[in-house]
Amino acid sequence: MTAPLEFYFDFSSPYAYIGAMRIDELAARHGRSVDWRPMLLGVALKATGSQPLTGYPLKGQYSTRDFARSAREYGIPFKMPTRFPIPTQAAARAVLWLKQHDQAGAANRAVPFAKAAYTALFVNDTDISSPDAVLDVAEGLGIDRAALAAGIEDPAIKDALRAQTDEAVHQRGVFGAPFVFVDGEPFWGADRFEMIERWLKRGGW
Amino acid sequence: MTAPLEFYFDFSSPYAYIGAMRIDELAARHGRSVDWRPMLLGVALKATGSQPLTGYPLKGQYSTRDFARSAREYGIPFKMPTRFPIPTQAAARAVLWLKQHDQAGAANRAVPFAKAAYTALFVNDTDISSPDAVLDVAEGLGIDRAALAAGIEDPAIKDALRAQTDEAVHQRGVFGAPFVFVDGEPFWGADRFEMIERWLKRGGW
Repeated sequence: MTAPLEFYFDFSSPYAYIGAMRIDELAARHGRSVDWRPMLLGVALKATGSQPLTGYPLKGQYSTRDFARSAREYGIPFKMPTRFPIPTQAAARAVLWLKQHDQAGAANRAVPFAKAAYTALFVNDTDISSPDAVLDVAEGLGIDRAALAAGIEDPAIKDALRAQTDEAVHQRGVFGAPFVFVDGEPFWGADRFEMIERWLKRGGW
Repeated sequence: MTAPLEFYFDFSSPYAYIGAMRIDELAARHGRSVDWRPMLLGVALKATGSQPLTGYPLKGQYSTRDFARSAREYGIPFKMPTRFPIPTQAAARAVLWLKQHDQAGAANRAVPFAKAAYTALFVNDTDISSPDAVLDVAEGLGIDRAALAAGIEDPAIKDALRAQTDEAVHQRGVFGAPFVFVDGEPFWGADRFEMIERWLKRGGW
């Protein structure tokens, strides 16, 4: 099968960041592409009555340690952001707008933008919650600042992010990030990537 | 270093079951032994304001699927128990009593008992919550039923389980199961075993 892997992510998730740095290469090793699907993790957490990991006693401390350790395991640079978690609507909308309005195919800059936004947050400790910070990241990739600024405020893009999040959570059972579907099979967490790899190698069960 | 790996587990956790079936061999590959430490997961979950995985909307369904899938990945037989979760005090106390009162060294039957109890629950769908069910499992290994029955009710053993659980949760930050310490480094989850293996291979960071 050759349908793209569906990669659901939120910019404020360290594990989704680690996943984002690995998913394209993982898919490519098995002749697959990736559909990058931004979502709002807050909606997913609300559906399960959960909160961001770092908000829990004990688990919060452990997670902060494990974020850094997991990144290190994969040779991915990581620095816990000073402000965390942050609202990610602007960055998520930027990805959706770029997917729709940028050039088609490999020239589309939605994924390079997503990786640059993740790097800004988790390597350079840049708070990417504001539209201005998001536009700075985009401009660094040669993306038209004014056009993207309008895109981020476009009601159709806002609706699209809401719809994609709602579909993910309420129809597909996405409750965390990263969350990957491979031919319909759900995988939650950066720590399921080895399982995804074996799954792809075997072609299913 | 040659200190034993500290393996914290609760009998009612499918991921701890998967961990239990792997931890001894993993440790042995690196010349290490394992100290099996039963605990009460309920106390740990309460400390973080959490509940058993299967109690969460969305996450519960996913987890049930992932239990079976994870077991399958490692060639470990698994059947979701009809009654789940269950109270595990009796089985946990049996492990503690065996550790203290059975023959020392390799002849100690605490670990064989723990594996047999896990198999009863997660392979044969036997509800091991009652002392009687626990004694049945023990008797199958040739353990003195009457002596163990007394041990399970011994106030000192009850206190020891309480103390070990409290120390794990409130002093060592154990908030889930399985939870493994390797030379002080904490690892939560059956899905961190590959990371533990790499850690042992490298001898730390």
